[in-house]
Amino acid sequence: MINISSKLVRDAVQELAKLPGIGAKTALRLVLHLLRQDVDTSVMLGNAIVSMRTNIKFCIKCHNIADGDYCHICTNPQRDGSTICIVENIKDVMVIENTGQFKGLYHVLGGIISPMDGIGPSHLNLDNIEKRIVENNVKEVIFALPTTIEGDTTSFYIFKKLKPLNLNITTLARGVAIGDDLEYTDEITLGRSLVNRVMYSV
Amino acid sequence: MINISSKLVRDAVQELAKLPGIGAKTALRLVLHLLRQDVDTSVMLGNAIVSMRTNIKFCIKCHNIADGDYCHICTNPQRDGSTICIVENIKDVMVIENTGQFKGLYHVLGGIISPMDGIGPSHLNLDNIEKRIVENNVKEVIFALPTTIEGDTTSFYIFKKLKPLNLNITTLARGVAIGDDLEYTDEITLGRSLVNRVMYSV
Repeated sequence: MINISSKLVRDAVQELAKLPGIGAKTALRLVLHLLRQDVDTSVMLGNAIVSMRTNIKFCIKCHNIADGDYCHICTNPQRDGSTICIVENIKDVMVIENTGQFKGLYHVLGGIISPMDGIGPSHLNLDNIEKRIVENNVKEVIFALPTTIEGDTTSFYIFKKLKPLNLNITTLARGVAIGDDLEYTDEITLGRSLVNRVMYSV
Repeated sequence: MINISSKLVRDAVQELAKLPGIGAKTALRLVLHLLRQDVDTSVMLGNAIVSMRTNIKFCIKCHNIADGDYCHICTNPQRDGSTICIVENIKDVMVIENTGQFKGLYHVLGGIISPMDGIGPSHLNLDNIEKRIVENNVKEVIFALPTTIEGDTTSFYIFKKLKPLNLNITTLARGVAIGDDLEYTDEITLGRSLVNRVMYSV
């Protein structure tokens, strides 16, 4: 690693290099880039990062990111409050929203049960979920969790917790991705797509 | 591009995506990473960037980055003040320092003459160079500029400017890189390495 004489530059490189996928060399390249730009560029970047992290709130209801107490989805009267989609993190909310196919509300767990990483059910945002379901007369809960052991464990844990509430509990369809060749689809996915086949419609 | 509901997150993504090599997707990934970390991580990162750019100074003598008025090289009494190495930017100072082979001082131009980009001699840090040479009794100036048309133009411009001062004006040796096969060396480099051959010594 190149020796950097300026403490200011060294500190900035060190902090940037903590980001995932950014090593010391890339961090130095970014800092040298910032040094060639106006002071404003760096001030705006730095302040945006600090302000984002210090002022961000998480929706009291669904734990999605929010600029206020509630997120833009929970406060939208157009959304269908009788359906809740359970996801691992806020990125999942973004990608599902991006499909434009879901009009219900979300519930962000903020992680999944993973004994290997020491994450148990108590670490997830699950405290208010039963209350949410009962109070809002929720009819369906959709699991949109990863298809890993951890994801399945989490789905099963929540399933057992919610079973007494007499709801429809569904999960995302798994199958051959659109545009994918059958030849290159793994056998578990292909098998599941056969078992869960749907009526052909035009 | 994914639609981001939070203005705070959107602003941070937008600022990060202005950095070279970081697109909107990577910027979002970095922001989501920061959201999973302590508030301190983001505060330290943001403040390091702002502080670096607002507090950094450039050495009055050689225009290298400095935490004070003069850089750590110009203020080091161990350095040989009779030799000045002329480089394009502060990164070049770092890489030359990293070789441990140079004990003189530097002069950072902050760019090279490039009519295509509208950069003329007046945009470079050249105002004080003759004064520096005369006042400090400099004996040798080394050009360490890129081997491009722009680099050669800049070297030639400075050469003409310094010629009356009766100095040794040298330039970096160009030749086959250590470890490189002759087979894969471009012909201009190989030709130059023949013309500038040196006495073999063991």
